[in-house]
Amino acid sequence: MKDYFTIKWADGIVEMLDQRLLPQQEVYRSYNHYIEVAQAIRDMVIRGAPAIGAAAGFGMALAAYYSEAATPDTLMRELHIAAEIINAARPTAVNVSWAVQRVIRDIESHSDRGIESLKNLVIKTAIDIAAEDVIVNKKIGRNGAEVVPEQANIIHHCNTGALATVDYGTALGVIRYAHESGKHIHVFVDETRPRLQGARLTAWELDRLGIPHTVIVDGASGYVMRTHHIDLCLVGCDRIAANGDVANKIGTYNLALAAHAHGVPFYSVGPTSTLDLNTQTGDDIPIEERSAEEVTHVGTQQVTPDGVKVANPAFDITPAKYITAIITEKGIASPPYRENLVRLLGS
Amino acid sequence: MKDYFTIKWADGIVEMLDQRLLPQQEVYRSYNHYIEVAQAIRDMVIRGAPAIGAAAGFGMALAAYYSEAATPDTLMRELHIAAEIINAARPTAVNVSWAVQRVIRDIESHSDRGIESLKNLVIKTAIDIAAEDVIVNKKIGRNGAEVVPEQANIIHHCNTGALATVDYGTALGVIRYAHESGKHIHVFVDETRPRLQGARLTAWELDRLGIPHTVIVDGASGYVMRTHHIDLCLVGCDRIAANGDVANKIGTYNLALAAHAHGVPFYSVGPTSTLDLNTQTGDDIPIEERSAEEVTHVGTQQVTPDGVKVANPAFDITPAKYITAIITEKGIASPPYRENLVRLLGS
Repeated sequence: MKDYFTIKWADGIVEMLDQRLLPQQEVYRSYNHYIEVAQAIRDMVIRGAPAIGAAAGFGMALAAYYSEAATPDTLMRELHIAAEIINAARPTAVNVSWAVQRVIRDIESHSDRGIESLKNLVIKTAIDIAAEDVIVNKKIGRNGAEVVPEQANIIHHCNTGALATVDYGTALGVIRYAHESGKHIHVFVDETRPRLQGARLTAWELDRLGIPHTVIVDGASGYVMRTHHIDLCLVGCDRIAANGDVANKIGTYNLALAAHAHGVPFYSVGPTSTLDLNTQTGDDIPIEERSAEEVTHVGTQQVTPDGVKVANPAFDITPAKYITAIITEKGIASPPYRENLVRLLGS
Repeated sequence: MKDYFTIKWADGIVEMLDQRLLPQQEVYRSYNHYIEVAQAIRDMVIRGAPAIGAAAGFGMALAAYYSEAATPDTLMRELHIAAEIINAARPTAVNVSWAVQRVIRDIESHSDRGIESLKNLVIKTAIDIAAEDVIVNKKIGRNGAEVVPEQANIIHHCNTGALATVDYGTALGVIRYAHESGKHIHVFVDETRPRLQGARLTAWELDRLGIPHTVIVDGASGYVMRTHHIDLCLVGCDRIAANGDVANKIGTYNLALAAHAHGVPFYSVGPTSTLDLNTQTGDDIPIEERSAEEVTHVGTQQVTPDGVKVANPAFDITPAKYITAIITEKGIASPPYRENLVRLLGS
């Protein structure tokens, strides 16, 4: 059924499926320098908070693998530089900095080792991050089961599937788990402008999984809630603040407001690595502004007048009060989030 | 400043600017048969409730102009057939049926006249409908002035400008009038998927009018309300039910919900010909479902996987409770709409 992979490490080469070309073309890219990986994250060859976390880890692995450092100190300095460059690739999802920090922490706590051992440790940590992501996602899928009824009409935003992770998916993992458990699922797929991750990637993944789905424009979600019984909305997350505010793909907030108006439960789904207790509220999360061209052009086709001014925030903040619960691999957190997210992390 | 026109009658020819090609190309189409005009309405060569109302009138004028009927009875039968065909072009906007009914009523109340006189009456009525639309829009613009502050950040959905009308515009007419009165206006332009009337047409018109504006994806409106002070939202309408529910371009409802959550006043703007007191509530308004291709393709470019299922409602219903007021040429109606719309029509 699944004959593609999102990202893979093989002996000093990081391979990724180029998600910019899907669903029309399946092209894999190979990188052997961390700067290329940082660029691939920035250019959205790979996207999705957990997937770019894994990519960041592999970027660090490349920095270690090809390092010509003669001493552990030099290697450490090189890795700090790599961490900074990879970290700067995309600012909103916390998973990138989470992954590079985990690598840095690991080697700093083993600074007594020799250089080859340190290099291997970096590579092992990166491979672990990727492998754990798959396990974590399957746990998320199982934990999410309790919120999905036997027959469910679900609205989903952006892409949170195997493509947004190392494998299986977060919000789409919950959907997949429910489908594999024999539940009757139908997904309304927000197309998710400007980059159309819903129309391009989620529709492609749902098709391969055999899960019935219907693509809609983002502006149609309220109408769909008025005219259909919608059981729940499932979305991913790029960063969860300590108070439960969630940064996620632009358009998530509008969907949450529509869900709120219709009494439709609204769940944010992600690994606890997306939780950032150092960020107090959504207002403290940096929102990446991407190029105007994502809005003015679709593919090579220009849709706007020449020179038009565009605002293109890649993410928005959904305040905690519109989020019914946050589904993670450690369980489901309900409000009040400030207490319950801390409790969840400790569990 | 304005060197284009939306629709024009000239001696048995109806000319329209082909709005499907804007802003990249300005191409005018000429029609001399009402079936072509009905097709042009259906294909959205021309769109916007008041503009397709005018087009419907001119379609009737073509039916009369080229009629070879020998008797008033035959002419009447032909016009009834034309009315039916034009009426079926698009179901949601009431302006089409309003215009053809006005033509039919006019000739039925002068059925004692000779055939040439009846033909001329049809043509005159169609020309009147178009001419009145411009006057009506300017009144709407003036009436709307009171809701627009001296410095105003406005979110606008779809296109409601000169292109959506015979000239001047409805919601965009209010913006234009405010700008021409020396107010400092900035418009956030919802791109308005799937057909991108905001990105393509509204941005083009605002540019020509010299009104500062910024294009956003539809999903960004909530984020913009969180991060900017937005004074009001202005949208058009395709049909207003007796209870004040408004059918308008898909995405309007989501925008209204975001405005409601942020306490941003939300105005629906249109001529009283858009009021349909025979339709009790929004649930009674037929919602046109358009082709999947509007969602799966942008121009010639396919964005979705092959064969994907799509729901593509062209309009949605915004319940009256989310509408601060309805701005018309006869004044501004506030809730309770059931009483106040009747009062407005009578004034």
